[in-house]
Amino acid sequence: MPPLSAAKKPTRYLALSGGVGGAKLVHGLAQVLPAEALMVAVNIGDDFEHLGLSICPDLDTVLYTLAGVVHPQQGWGRADESLGVLDELRRLGGPDWFTLGDRDIALHLLRSQLLAQGLSLSQVSNELARRLGVDVTVLPVSDQRLRTTVYTDQGALAFQDYFVRLRCAPVLRALDFVGAAQARLAPAVRELLTGDDLAGVIVCPSNPYLSLAPMLAIAELRELLRTVAAPVIAVSPIVAGDAIKGPTAKIMRELGVQPQAGIIAELYADFVDAVIVDVADAALADGDTRFDVAATVMKTAEHRAALARHCIALVQRLRS
Amino acid sequence: MPPLSAAKKPTRYLALSGGVGGAKLVHGLAQVLPAEALMVAVNIGDDFEHLGLSICPDLDTVLYTLAGVVHPQQGWGRADESLGVLDELRRLGGPDWFTLGDRDIALHLLRSQLLAQGLSLSQVSNELARRLGVDVTVLPVSDQRLRTTVYTDQGALAFQDYFVRLRCAPVLRALDFVGAAQARLAPAVRELLTGDDLAGVIVCPSNPYLSLAPMLAIAELRELLRTVAAPVIAVSPIVAGDAIKGPTAKIMRELGVQPQAGIIAELYADFVDAVIVDVADAALADGDTRFDVAATVMKTAEHRAALARHCIALVQRLRS
Repeated sequence: MPPLSAAKKPTRYLALSGGVGGAKLVHGLAQVLPAEALMVAVNIGDDFEHLGLSICPDLDTVLYTLAGVVHPQQGWGRADESLGVLDELRRLGGPDWFTLGDRDIALHLLRSQLLAQGLSLSQVSNELARRLGVDVTVLPVSDQRLRTTVYTDQGALAFQDYFVRLRCAPVLRALDFVGAAQARLAPAVRELLTGDDLAGVIVCPSNPYLSLAPMLAIAELRELLRTVAAPVIAVSPIVAGDAIKGPTAKIMRELGVQPQAGIIAELYADFVDAVIVDVADAALADGDTRFDVAATVMKTAEHRAALARHCIALVQRLRS
Repeated sequence: MPPLSAAKKPTRYLALSGGVGGAKLVHGLAQVLPAEALMVAVNIGDDFEHLGLSICPDLDTVLYTLAGVVHPQQGWGRADESLGVLDELRRLGGPDWFTLGDRDIALHLLRSQLLAQGLSLSQVSNELARRLGVDVTVLPVSDQRLRTTVYTDQGALAFQDYFVRLRCAPVLRALDFVGAAQARLAPAVRELLTGDDLAGVIVCPSNPYLSLAPMLAIAELRELLRTVAAPVIAVSPIVAGDAIKGPTAKIMRELGVQPQAGIIAELYADFVDAVIVDVADAALADGDTRFDVAATVMKTAEHRAALARHCIALVQRLRS
């Protein structure tokens, strides 16, 4: 029988996520955990101002995915979207390289208004989640400004210039996360990481360079992940030597890194307790306890929930 | 025979306009004058920021009217408009009291972007006119901020709160044009008013309290209108004791002024050379040389052009 003074078993999970790929696992976690047991800290390195709108692509993708209103094929943007504004912008010779759907614009306008009223990005994200009917806590990793600059063979580029306007075509040489040195963790994220109710941290299968590196560039976050008592696990976004989606593999090659699932354990070596790799990479786990194997390709909501259950089981196994 | 040194006959007209009513006469003037002979200085007292967008209702109405894309029944906003953004804003519980069409939003986004790039409101208006295919010069009366505050029986209200959100229902007690004391004329407007190519000034049939008073509150403008050599004429927005459209008559009654066409000559007594009243008010012109008579109700493009021709003929008669 446990002593009466036994500490309460911790109940809350922190997920670190970028956009599309990460949002899928977040959606799985939201299916299998009570809403109050899940907090998602999201990359803000992609955030930018466009036509005066404050746009947070990764936060939007996570919110839209959890709200069930994301475009099912794209994985970002809204389903049943119209392009009335963009069509007219194009007619007026305005910039049309960043696809802004009308529903999307409504959210950007609301966010811009709430920010202008003095709310922090965390407060704004809570408010937008509420309005979208999302009951999981979705927060920016920081309330301070942190922006990814991409150094390429075509010079230094703001992230969305590189990622959307130029479709990642320039050869990547280096990344800089401007503002990271000054950025602090969003208060609620810090509270969860430093409190006694943290059951585990799950690093979603997001791009390690473009989505997770900006977050991990916040010294406070990386240091807390290193020292936290709860297990920290990651899911590899690399499957059988390639990325499921997006430019991860191309970027790794440009940075001189062989795209293979094992690299995740090296990139996160200082804080990760285990890395889940896909069944296609099961050989990695042979005699290497850093790795765990699961089906990581999430084509359906059920795949997402199954991977989420696997993650939670792994965390609980690591804790015991 | 005129001496060889005779001054060139001045060729350019300045129109002062608010929104819907003024824009109709501006459209008439644009039909009968070469584009380079017409400059329109537009009220900015209605301008406001909404959801982070910089909105200039009167400038937009004049531009849309001249571009032939204005909503024909409303007289403001765009024809063939869609409401994708507004519908979603409503779903998200955002403010929907100000109707923002998708095409309209495209223009506001472009304006907000150009202003953020450091362009003056005059430069932005020139750029938007160019993109809409408008070759007449349409400018804000000032590049500085000038905002109408309405004092009512429900307290002080920002202009659009009073005009759109509350549909002019509160009883108006007084008006304040915040920023007017600091505002200077837009440079091109000043240049025309102080140069030697000014043929005449036409005060359009806009609301004298809500549309023209904010402009005339710029001391520099009123003083130049008083002293300029070219004739200054006005078209009465009051016809047979009522306003053709909008709250002009209601406002005059609330301010203790009898709504009748003759009041225009009194309100502009210090600078106007003649006031055109409608045929319904022809009796005013009996033995009173301040008044001239024309059909001022503009139901068609031809009506607009006919009134514009009348205005120009009157200016030319006053000059000779």
